[in-house]
Amino acid sequence: MIRFALHGGAGVIERANLSSENEVQFRSEMARICADAVVKLQQGASALDVVEASICQLENFALFNAGHGAVLNANAEVEMDAAIMDGRNRACGAIAAAKTPKNPITLARAVMEQTEHVLIVGAGADQLAAKLGVAQAELSYFVTEFRAEQQRLAAKLGKVTLDHDSIFNAPVLTSGLADPRDKKGTVGAVARDAHGNLAAGTSTGGMTNKMPGRTGDTAIIGAGTWADNQTLAASATGHGEYFIRNAVCFDIHAQMLYGGQSIEAASAATFARVGKMGGTGGVIAIDHSGLIHMPFNSEGMYRAWFDGQQMQVAIYQNDLL
Amino acid sequence: MIRFALHGGAGVIERANLSSENEVQFRSEMARICADAVVKLQQGASALDVVEASICQLENFALFNAGHGAVLNANAEVEMDAAIMDGRNRACGAIAAAKTPKNPITLARAVMEQTEHVLIVGAGADQLAAKLGVAQAELSYFVTEFRAEQQRLAAKLGKVTLDHDSIFNAPVLTSGLADPRDKKGTVGAVARDAHGNLAAGTSTGGMTNKMPGRTGDTAIIGAGTWADNQTLAASATGHGEYFIRNAVCFDIHAQMLYGGQSIEAASAATFARVGKMGGTGGVIAIDHSGLIHMPFNSEGMYRAWFDGQQMQVAIYQNDLL
Repeated sequence: MIRFALHGGAGVIERANLSSENEVQFRSEMARICADAVVKLQQGASALDVVEASICQLENFALFNAGHGAVLNANAEVEMDAAIMDGRNRACGAIAAAKTPKNPITLARAVMEQTEHVLIVGAGADQLAAKLGVAQAELSYFVTEFRAEQQRLAAKLGKVTLDHDSIFNAPVLTSGLADPRDKKGTVGAVARDAHGNLAAGTSTGGMTNKMPGRTGDTAIIGAGTWADNQTLAASATGHGEYFIRNAVCFDIHAQMLYGGQSIEAASAATFARVGKMGGTGGVIAIDHSGLIHMPFNSEGMYRAWFDGQQMQVAIYQNDLL
Repeated sequence: MIRFALHGGAGVIERANLSSENEVQFRSEMARICADAVVKLQQGASALDVVEASICQLENFALFNAGHGAVLNANAEVEMDAAIMDGRNRACGAIAAAKTPKNPITLARAVMEQTEHVLIVGAGADQLAAKLGVAQAELSYFVTEFRAEQQRLAAKLGKVTLDHDSIFNAPVLTSGLADPRDKKGTVGAVARDAHGNLAAGTSTGGMTNKMPGRTGDTAIIGAGTWADNQTLAASATGHGEYFIRNAVCFDIHAQMLYGGQSIEAASAATFARVGKMGGTGGVIAIDHSGLIHMPFNSEGMYRAWFDGQQMQVAIYQNDLL
C-alpha cells in the first residue's frame, strides 16, 4: 500500500509560456525523482526518509524554487524555508529565512531530530547547520543566472512578485528560460510507506525580490505542511499568506477528523475559502487509506505521483485529458 | 456584549515560590491593564485596538516575559515573537526573533496592515521596524537584572529552560525576585468589542538561554494565536513546541466549526492531546457568543478578565475558591 506524490509548485502555468524543451526537463526530472521514491518505498524505506530524499532531489534541480535555484530576495540573497513532519507522532521540524543549508529540508529534519525545537529562523538556522554539521553552501551555489535576472528585473520595476505577475512574461525572461514567473517552484513531497505511516515535507525560496525575513506558509506547521496518520499527509504551494490565514493543511485534516469529511470534500471546502479571499495554489495529499488527492485552484501545478498501480506526471489542469 | 481577557503566561506557579509582594505587583498590574481595556471597549474601541494596546502594556511591565523584561537567549540577547489577528477577516501579522521593536505586538500589527505579508522573521523584522518607523530600542531597554541573572545561571548550568526547570527555584533567583522560572510570562489578550468583532494577540521573549532563532508557538498563526468571528479569539501560552504540533488555537476553532463542539469541550480535547504528549500551558479565549474560557493544564496561569458583569484576576488553579 505504498503511495507517493511530489509537487514543484503551483501557479499560472500556461502551455504558451513553457518551451517544449523546458517542459521535457520538468517532466523527466519529476518522473525520475518519483520513480526513485517509489523504488525506495518498495524496498522498505520509511515515509519520512523518502520525503526527505525526494525533496533533496527537488531542491538540487535548478529549475524549481528551492535550494539550488531558489529565488532571490530584495538584497539579492537567498532566504529559504522548509518543514518536515512525521505522521506517526506529529514530530516536526522547520527552518525559515536560512541562507546557507545546501538542502534546507535536511536542516528541518535535523531541527526535528537533534533539537528540542520545532522552528529555527534567520541567522540562528545557519548557525545551527554549522553546529550540527548539516551541509552548507555559499550564495553562489544557490544562485542561477535565471534567478539573478528575475530579481534584477523585479527590483528595477519595484515589484515584489507575490502574485503571478505578468512582468515575468517579458521576453528577457522567457527566451530560453524556464519558469517565467515567480510563484511556481516551491517543492514538496508526501509518502505512505509499507507500514502505513505518513510523512510530508515542503521547501521553498519564497518570493522573488521579497522583503528580507518574509516567511510564507512553507515553514508553518499546519499551513504549508502537515502529517498525521489518523488523517493525511499534505504539502502546500501557493500564495503563502492566504495559506497561513487559512491554516490550509491543518484545515483539511480537521474537517476529516472532526467533521468526518472525505479528503476531497475537505479540500474543496478549504480551497473555496482560500479562493474567496483571493489566494491561489495547491496541495498534494495522501490520506490514511492511501488515496491521493492533489487539488489546486491555479492554472497548473507541477506534480508526479504513484497511486499503487502506476506513476504519472502532470503540469496543467487538463494534463491527463 | 463587550468581553476581555488577558494572560501573563502559564507554568509552575506555586504560592510558596511567589512572594506576597510580587503577587501584589502581578495582580495589580493585570487589574489595571484589564480595567483600562474594558473602559476602552465601553467607549467603543475596536477589539483589535484594545488587544494591541493591552499587550503593549503587558510588554512594558518588567515582570512578564515580553518586550521590556523579555528573557535572554544563549547569546544574552533578546529575540522576541509576537502575533495579532483580526476575527473579522482573518487578517493577521506576526514577527519572530526580532531584537529591537520596543513593542513587538505593534510591529506585528504593522506587518498585518502595512505589508502584504503575514510573518517577518529575524533581522528582516528589525529592518522593517526601522523602515516603517515602528519604535525600536537598544538591548539595554529590554534587559532587566533578573533576566540577565536568570540567563547567566541557565548558561552556567548548560540548560535551555524549555521546561519549568527547578533550577529556577535557586535562592539566587527567588530571593526578592518575581517569576522564579522561565516559562511564565508570555503575554496575550483577546477581546470582543461592541460590534461583536473578535481579536487576539500574543507576545513573548521565548525561553531563557534558548538557541538563537528558536521560535515557539507565539508567532505561529493557528498555534499560539487565532481569531475568527465564526468561532473564537484565542491566545496561548506554554511549551511552544507542543502547541505548534497540535496547532492548539486552530484545533479548538476547528472542533467548534466542523464538529459543532462547545468551546469547553473543544478545549478539553485539545489539552488532552497536548498533555498526553507531555506539553503544558494554557489558552485564554472568547467565543463568538461572548463566553470566556481559560483552560490550562499547568499549575497556574496569570490571567484577568471581564465577563460583561465583573472583572476578575487570578493566578492559581484554585484562585477563586
